[in-house]
Amino acid sequence: MQIFDKIADMRAYLAEARARGERIGFVPTMGFLHKGHLALIRSAREDPEVDRVVVSIFVNPLQFGPREDYRTYPRDLKRDEELCRSGGTDALFIPPVEEMYPEGFATYVEVTGITELLCGRSRPGHFRGVATVVAKLFNIVQPDCAYFGIKDAQQVVVIRRMVADLNFPVKVKVHPTVREEDGLAVSSRNVYLGPEERQAATVLYRSLKLAGEAIARGERDAARLKQFIEETITAEPLARLDYAEVVSWPDLKPIESLQPGEVLLAVAAYFGRARLIDNLLVEVKA
Amino acid sequence: MQIFDKIADMRAYLAEARARGERIGFVPTMGFLHKGHLALIRSAREDPEVDRVVVSIFVNPLQFGPREDYRTYPRDLKRDEELCRSGGTDALFIPPVEEMYPEGFATYVEVTGITELLCGRSRPGHFRGVATVVAKLFNIVQPDCAYFGIKDAQQVVVIRRMVADLNFPVKVKVHPTVREEDGLAVSSRNVYLGPEERQAATVLYRSLKLAGEAIARGERDAARLKQFIEETITAEPLARLDYAEVVSWPDLKPIESLQPGEVLLAVAAYFGRARLIDNLLVEVKA
Repeated sequence: MQIFDKIADMRAYLAEARARGERIGFVPTMGFLHKGHLALIRSAREDPEVDRVVVSIFVNPLQFGPREDYRTYPRDLKRDEELCRSGGTDALFIPPVEEMYPEGFATYVEVTGITELLCGRSRPGHFRGVATVVAKLFNIVQPDCAYFGIKDAQQVVVIRRMVADLNFPVKVKVHPTVREEDGLAVSSRNVYLGPEERQAATVLYRSLKLAGEAIARGERDAARLKQFIEETITAEPLARLDYAEVVSWPDLKPIESLQPGEVLLAVAAYFGRARLIDNLLVEVKA
Repeated sequence: MQIFDKIADMRAYLAEARARGERIGFVPTMGFLHKGHLALIRSAREDPEVDRVVVSIFVNPLQFGPREDYRTYPRDLKRDEELCRSGGTDALFIPPVEEMYPEGFATYVEVTGITELLCGRSRPGHFRGVATVVAKLFNIVQPDCAYFGIKDAQQVVVIRRMVADLNFPVKVKVHPTVREEDGLAVSSRNVYLGPEERQAATVLYRSLKLAGEAIARGERDAARLKQFIEETITAEPLARLDYAEVVSWPDLKPIESLQPGEVLLAVAAYFGRARLIDNLLVEVKA
């Protein structure tokens, strides 16, 4: 596995691979890798449309709000390198912040509409930061395929929208959420959780599953489902609810009554200083 | 010369060229081609770094304000095709609006700061439209080199900023302004001018040249230069001044006193319904 911290060196490596006709699979991450990331790397490694696997590790300051956890976001580069290597990564890109945002940086990619609700409402500017850094990474790596986890469902929608709208020649591939045995979605931020918070955090997925079961039993009223998820989460004393929403998929519009097709149940809550998100895509039967 | 109106067909043609190791030169235009465009096409054709020349013609609605001339912008596709062919264009890309902005389009590229003055102040949203469409075209064509005229000096700065900030793997090449014999910068919008307005419009370049001469004689006060250009233009009864500015190059910042290096003199004025722009880059001696 080769490691690059300069854009020019990463490009030179990739230009050679491309000149040999190799196709690039790309997994952008913020590091502190977990089972979810490893599943994405494995998807890329096993993808018949991919010859070479590139992983990036970059904690992107642009997607953190001023009161958020940019400075304290967990980092462990040594361990990440080892995990990438054993996962079959060919090239690891770890640019420093000055390499990505040199002085005078002034350009932003804005995906409008779908970024205004869910996490976009709680974290203004977050998806602008995400879209901008992913546009940059796509232009640096020029991947044929890029891999994202559906755990960040709104991020997936935003990136797909950006790729379609700006005509990035990249195939976006989406991987199911990886969970711990008790259902908690794996996340780098789970490291923030104390033992009791860790236990309490299982309420997120539990609330989603219970709502999914209610839909299976015939519930079609979005407001009642939302209230049901909210009540399940707020019943947990260590949880502080940020939002619970029932929205259309994949356009993330508020809905009143569930129609046949797919619907997204999405939640965010704080457990101590950890803000965790989770979601469930539910098939609504006719 | 091959002509494409679908993104997928344009891409397929280019993928084949790239697979043969050919390098792409790209001239994006809004059509109604003139000597300035032809100079850009010739630059691409004669560029030793380019094997294949692609020209696009797309009148981009996103860069026109609601009261601007999008509907009436001059179009003559038959003539443009002939000019492209005789200029040595290999492929002409003429997408319809629905191909570039299908329903649901929601992503914009914003270059901040340098877009807030000069034409950016008179035409809010204009450079957002320019940056967005150029990002799209760059992702569709994936050129090695792209060619722009310095007549749109602020556009050049915006595109260079975007290319640097979003890491587009494109070399931006800039061509000098092409002028009529009497100094008027060639522009598709010159067709709007009646004979008297056409004569009056020469005041733009004249005012810039006179200011350039004043700088050569030692004038270093930006406010006096600006006033001098304004007075020269407003002395022409058929001219309605939009702005005259003296700004630093290439960061387009307001300046008080000219320092050694380059300075941009930039003007915009209406002649009848034609809004024309012009500029002069002046070397300031120590």
